[in-house]
Amino acid sequence: MAVKVYGKPQAVCPQRVMHCLVEKGVPFEFVLVDIDAMEQKRPEYMEKHPFGQVPFIADGDFELFESRAIVRYFAAKYADRGPNLLGRTAEERAKVEQWLDVEAISYSPCAFTIVFNLFLLPIRGLPGNKGEAVAAMEKLDKVLEVYEKQLSRTKYLAGDEFTLADLTHIPVTRYIVEHCGLAYLLDDKPHAKAWWEDVSRRPAWKKVMSFVASGASFYSP
Amino acid sequence: MAVKVYGKPQAVCPQRVMHCLVEKGVPFEFVLVDIDAMEQKRPEYMEKHPFGQVPFIADGDFELFESRAIVRYFAAKYADRGPNLLGRTAEERAKVEQWLDVEAISYSPCAFTIVFNLFLLPIRGLPGNKGEAVAAMEKLDKVLEVYEKQLSRTKYLAGDEFTLADLTHIPVTRYIVEHCGLAYLLDDKPHAKAWWEDVSRRPAWKKVMSFVASGASFYSP
Ligand SMILES: N[C@@H](CCC(=O)N[C@@H](CS)C(=O)NCC(=O)O)C(=O)O
Ligand SMILES: N[C@@H](CCC(=O)N[C@@H](CS)C(=O)NCC(=O)O)C(=O)O
Repeated sequence: MAVKVYGKPQAVCPQRVMHCLVEKGVPFEFVLVDIDAMEQKRPEYMEKHPFGQVPFIADGDFELFESRAIVRYFAAKYADRGPNLLGRTAEERAKVEQWLDVEAISYSPCAFTIVFNLFLLPIRGLPGNKGEAVAAMEKLDKVLEVYEKQLSRTKYLAGDEFTLADLTHIPVTRYIVEHCGLAYLLDDKPHAKAWWEDVSRRPAWKKVMSFVASGASFYSP
Repeated sequence: MAVKVYGKPQAVCPQRVMHCLVEKGVPFEFVLVDIDAMEQKRPEYMEKHPFGQVPFIADGDFELFESRAIVRYFAAKYADRGPNLLGRTAEERAKVEQWLDVEAISYSPCAFTIVFNLFLLPIRGLPGNKGEAVAAMEKLDKVLEVYEKQLSRTKYLAGDEFTLADLTHIPVTRYIVEHCGLAYLLDDKPHAKAWWEDVSRRPAWKKVMSFVASGASFYSP
């Protein structure tokens, strides 16, 4: 039975999960939970995901939520297939975990505040809070300065190989760069800019973007 | 060479790391970085921790920051010593990761806002923002409702064994319960209350509290 990914294909957290599965060449079925129609708060769905959010996955009988826990699970399950996404030693894995936590705790909350106020509200005809967006941009810029320094030492965040630590950044950063007019945040950060150009051109990520655009329900490699 | 833990012993994130090491019976040296004196922003320290925060650890030549990455690293390194903290199968580990992410992304940001405004600012003679604290309490209460449901099904968050998913909650929850007068948040949640009584009475956690109170620099089991 194919893995089932529940969510809205345009949402960043489900995209993280799809990207990991595509990197690993794992087929999946995408089950729409329309967060614009608040389907994530329906009682049947909240039995699966008690916080009423997406994504949620079912791998046979095994069910899981939290996008970063899900990508760790698939990266470990398919460790010997496709790129190594978790590091090969305890120390390498620890560095992957370090940057995964930076992404989840420091990077994405700022990035999401920006996307919410500068893109998600405006496309619904609602005014975004510019002050909140600007404060978040200043914080995000400081995080990106740390990335710039790290990426001047190693090609990817956790070392010289692409890992989950990079992968989890991609969906929200695409919104920042392509839909919030903030590509310029990378202009004074040559290493971070080269990293973004590299990771956002990964064939697996391009496949995710095509899959999302296609409106299809099944992905097979 | 003993593991070195850099931080302030009273701070919640270093306590998470100490607790893990004590559960595993691993000796460590505690190196004071006085965050009240802003020592975490000194250039020498920021070479180690680019965000200028605590904790930071050195295990021989291996250096790491982010408290939850650090506890994962030690729990994996000492998997066969003391309690199993990461689960035994890929599925068990995935559930540990799921709740670790809930703690880092949903629980602790609310809990920290409360502790900051109701305890850390007031003890410095500064006014806390009560409105912010109340909003965070309402959010935290919703997260605790989910925990109540989960803990009515399994003894611990990720299953029937104590894991990192529980451990990472303890330091900030102690401040909430003991220093913010919010023990009552658990009164209508019998399973969450029993869980808190259980995990906060763990011998390893009591040893951490004694170590912090003692002002000692070396811990040995
Ligand atoms: N920490 C969660 C966050 C999930 C999340 O925020 N999902 C968003 C879409 S990207 C959502 O469900 N929004 C609708 C809602 O929160 O009601 C994860 O990474 O899976
Ligand atoms: N996500 C980090 C957070 C670290 C953190 O917030 N540390 C606090 C003490 S608990 C700190 O260093 N505060 C001083 C500062 O941020 O300048 C971790 O878990 O290690």
